[in-house]
Amino acid sequence: MTRTLCSELPAAHAAGNSSATVEGWIHRRRQLSGVTFVIVRDRSGVAQVVATESAVREQISWLPEETVVRVAGGVIANGKAPGGIEIIDPVITPLGPPAAVPPVELWRPALKATLPTVLDHAALTWRHPARRAVWQIAAASMAGFRQHLDSAGFTEVTTPKIVEQSAESGANVFTLDYFGAPAYLAQSPQLYKQMLTGVFERVYEVGPVFRAEPHDTARHLAEYVSLDVEFGFIADHRDVLSVLRDTLAAMLERVRATAGTAVESIGAQLPSVPEQIPVLHFTEALEVVGAPPEEPDLAPEHERALGKWALREFGSDFLAVEGYPAAKRPFYTHPQPTDPRWTNSFDLLFRGLELVTGGQRLHNHADYLHALTTRGEDPARYTAYLEAMSGGMPPHGGFAIGLERWVSRLVEVDNIRWSTLFPRDLHRLSP
Amino acid sequence: MTRTLCSELPAAHAAGNSSATVEGWIHRRRQLSGVTFVIVRDRSGVAQVVATESAVREQISWLPEETVVRVAGGVIANGKAPGGIEIIDPVITPLGPPAAVPPVELWRPALKATLPTVLDHAALTWRHPARRAVWQIAAASMAGFRQHLDSAGFTEVTTPKIVEQSAESGANVFTLDYFGAPAYLAQSPQLYKQMLTGVFERVYEVGPVFRAEPHDTARHLAEYVSLDVEFGFIADHRDVLSVLRDTLAAMLERVRATAGTAVESIGAQLPSVPEQIPVLHFTEALEVVGAPPEEPDLAPEHERALGKWALREFGSDFLAVEGYPAAKRPFYTHPQPTDPRWTNSFDLLFRGLELVTGGQRLHNHADYLHALTTRGEDPARYTAYLEAMSGGMPPHGGFAIGLERWVSRLVEVDNIRWSTLFPRDLHRLSP
Repeated sequence: MTRTLCSELPAAHAAGNSSATVEGWIHRRRQLSGVTFVIVRDRSGVAQVVATESAVREQISWLPEETVVRVAGGVIANGKAPGGIEIIDPVITPLGPPAAVPPVELWRPALKATLPTVLDHAALTWRHPARRAVWQIAAASMAGFRQHLDSAGFTEVTTPKIVEQSAESGANVFTLDYFGAPAYLAQSPQLYKQMLTGVFERVYEVGPVFRAEPHDTARHLAEYVSLDVEFGFIADHRDVLSVLRDTLAAMLERVRATAGTAVESIGAQLPSVPEQIPVLHFTEALEVVGAPPEEPDLAPEHERALGKWALREFGSDFLAVEGYPAAKRPFYTHPQPTDPRWTNSFDLLFRGLELVTGGQRLHNHADYLHALTTRGEDPARYTAYLEAMSGGMPPHGGFAIGLERWVSRLVEVDNIRWSTLFPRDLHRLSP
Repeated sequence: MTRTLCSELPAAHAAGNSSATVEGWIHRRRQLSGVTFVIVRDRSGVAQVVATESAVREQISWLPEETVVRVAGGVIANGKAPGGIEIIDPVITPLGPPAAVPPVELWRPALKATLPTVLDHAALTWRHPARRAVWQIAAASMAGFRQHLDSAGFTEVTTPKIVEQSAESGANVFTLDYFGAPAYLAQSPQLYKQMLTGVFERVYEVGPVFRAEPHDTARHLAEYVSLDVEFGFIADHRDVLSVLRDTLAAMLERVRATAGTAVESIGAQLPSVPEQIPVLHFTEALEVVGAPPEEPDLAPEHERALGKWALREFGSDFLAVEGYPAAKRPFYTHPQPTDPRWTNSFDLLFRGLELVTGGQRLHNHADYLHALTTRGEDPARYTAYLEAMSGGMPPHGGFAIGLERWVSRLVEVDNIRWSTLFPRDLHRLSP
């Protein structure tokens, strides 16, 4: 008998089917005096099964929650059941042995466990519908990211994660034994995506990046998913911000379209992306938060204050801060043409948290040599990169979105680990 | 003035535009007695620019190949120009300094350089249209993979690449310093994708995998892109092969749809995927190639012979060999129910090369304990994985396609490095 997904039962019933077979996990059993209710969960949702025969009720008593079963039965309307449909007179076939009792009760509407417990048992706790909804939003975000960029003439690339040199600095890099020689895990695809802009003009990559973060914070991971974009033939960083704006809007559109049920089920409030994301210069941002003008960076509390300010002033969950001081930006950052103390780079704050870093890059070989030597870096460490830069590069720029941060702010959890399938940090290397 | 892509010029001309601005790289200059031709290359293709004014001809003589330029001019029909259109009376604005002479002449129809030279200068040599076409086929393949699986109810996942234990064996694993403790680079997402099948039923991942391959062969890399699939509620490995078949067909469909020009430009012959991929049992495969029945595996020459045989017997570029000996398969492999010397696993050969490994996995906790202890492995090394297996897992299976191998066989190059943006192997860690 063909399997029907739980979510398809109403349509199957409406189409005149009087019976159906579902397959999934026993989410919850309830034994009443003359009837046993079983909620079956599959990838699409849940279905209610009603057993009245004593042999079947006895069978169910031996099938604990999370046991995998096939259930064939009659299909009838019941306004009180999920989807308005229930399965009656079930024939239940276990598809595996009775499941062990999970470390956390997965059938409860809210998962009652601390973060460490949830993470220790991630393979099981992600089964909880409220957890699964979070990842469905992540998956839809990635799909929306690619869909938009594909339609805008970008080419997907995959760049190496084992690298000879750390891309940006020697700090926070994982070291590897590469056939007896040292190598590093890529902190970002920055240098590669720039080189590939010389090939494809417009590139993106969705892939892991690695940071040996020595701090244990609620917003850093040792490994996360970076949504990277780089493209050529730009006027300046405002063109980059414009593509970022459209990309975020497309990601949200896809979340609404394919993870709308997930969003609703956890009560997440999706933002709307303004046609023009408000932009403040770094110097103005310092003024808004009342920080001294010589401050070299925005602290987390500044970002939170700016987030509130943008919401109040513009009704926007997003705020771009441009012109960050050159001293705080990597060597490839393009200076602000009117005043080279500042740069053509920006951070995008989302609900008061830095979500994206982006900007225009240098594209002339001579500027790179100058930038590297000024910082005391040896250009010989960047041979292939500098060869690309001397070989004809368009004015270009790009950005990177941290997937888990994005999802964390979307669903408003207080720790990025709630949005990561199997997080890695200073203290956690498993599961 | 708005930029027009080279490929859009014919439509712009047909729509009545008498002028246009293109931006791109100077691909080739040809100085004749009274006229200079410039071929400009952008992400979409090339356009011919014709200069007759002496000042402009002089300017062009100072702009070497690969210099990035903006060209504004009149647009007229010329049957001999690419796309039937050429740009006349050009105003040329360099968008950067004159480009250095590339190590390989990129304007020649065929790239004349050895593989080591091409790889040493990958950031430049990928600019060659015939190289770029190869990657466009790779990008379209990834897009087709995801598009099909998204439409079939799969959820995209991202699993950690830094792991506490090597997934399948201690061999060929890269070791890492993880905050002072040893860790490993994931050889595959196998254990994670299985655990997540317990959450989402159907999952896929496109991501890097790492193999410390001590051999220098034309078909192995130390880092490659794995297209991983895993799903539950299957009858056996034949269900896995069926999803694989449809996935490959969708990948080819997308290659045809969005990289058709690339395919044509390099004369690649795309295969068609039979409705039913022919299947041989391992024992039959040994007979076909005339190998002794006690042979434990198929050697590369056996695979090549089987590829020819499938083409001759079935007109198929694809052949599945099922039932591989249990001793040669990983511990999670489901035995063949009729004879446990064999397994419910398969390899898919594409044009005589192993492209995909797949099959049904064990799904009962007790079977895992038995499989691990029989092989002398300590179950304590698999705590989280075994917890998931005891927590209710459906019968499941999956497969993994190596992206670079797939593309290499599609475009029929003799070394996988031709299809890899920045390959990593025993001897190569840069660029």
